Amino acid sequence: MDQQLHFITFATPDLDAARAFYKDGLGWDPRMDVPGEILFFQVAPGLMLGLFDAEKFDQDLNSSTPTDGVCGVTLSHNVSSAEDVSSTIDALVAAGATVIKPAQAGAFGGIFHGHVKDPNGIVWEIAHNPGWRIDDDGTVVFG
Amino acid sequence: MDQQLHFITFATPDLDAARAFYKDGLGWDPRMDVPGEILFFQVAPGLMLGLFDAEKFDQDLNSSTPTDGVCGVTLSHNVSSAEDVSSTIDALVAAGATVIKPAQAGAFGGIFHGHVKDPNGIVWEIAHNPGWRIDDDGTVVFG
Repeated sequence: MDQQLHFITFATPDLDAARAFYKDGLGWDPRMDVPGEILFFQVAPGLMLGLFDAEKFDQDLNSSTPTDGVCGVTLSHNVSSAEDVSSTIDALVAAGATVIKPAQAGAFGGIFHGHVKDPNGIVWEIAHNPGWRIDDDGTVVFG
Repeated sequence: MDQQLHFITFATPDLDAARAFYKDGLGWDPRMDVPGEILFFQVAPGLMLGLFDAEKFDQDLNSSTPTDGVCGVTLSHNVSSAEDVSSTIDALVAAGATVIKPAQAGAFGGIFHGHVKDPNGIVWEIAHNPGWRIDDDGTVVFG
């Protein structure tokens, strides 16, 4: 199996709230939007983020215990300065996110970061990491 | 906030089992491996998958309720034929995965797919989707 991820899909209890947050609040451009079913955003080369109605998510997995959301996952978005961490968190809050951990120095790696939850409870870390970069060919480098 | 994901990080109760599965079982190449802390694999251009010790994951989020794993998330890996779905699922099982849904025709989109759980409970869908492709510039195209 190649070392390659193509989709990440989240059980989303409130798809309308997700649309309002990512599309209307953050200005993201959905690649596909099927109300009541699924909402897709491309979030890296070759990679889609899918927000999938939670009941349909369970059906797809043949799951007998209903999922009411996501746990144990953080999505991270890196920005180019500590100031941008704070302003991006402000933008997320303005769009409807809730702060979990305000912008602050991280415990290791020299990062400066903060965490929010989107309206469905999906956790986003916004981080400035001076030891991280993406080379022109897409290779991630840790410094 | 740009429409861009840089890291996806999972709370991982058993990091040694994760290493055995992804590195030894699937032959993936870790970008960073700090035993007892975190294991990183690059899984798309500019995107890292982080498997983070579950206790440290909780500390990082200042969480008072311990996470014992991941819920409400599916990672998908697309392959080029229905036969490859079955053989990839076989390879995952040989590496230590458990089948949730055997390879079969999907409910919509004309896909053929199956689902497994890795040793920490992370769900992978293996899919053949004839209506999906990645263009040379990384753009994902449906249908």
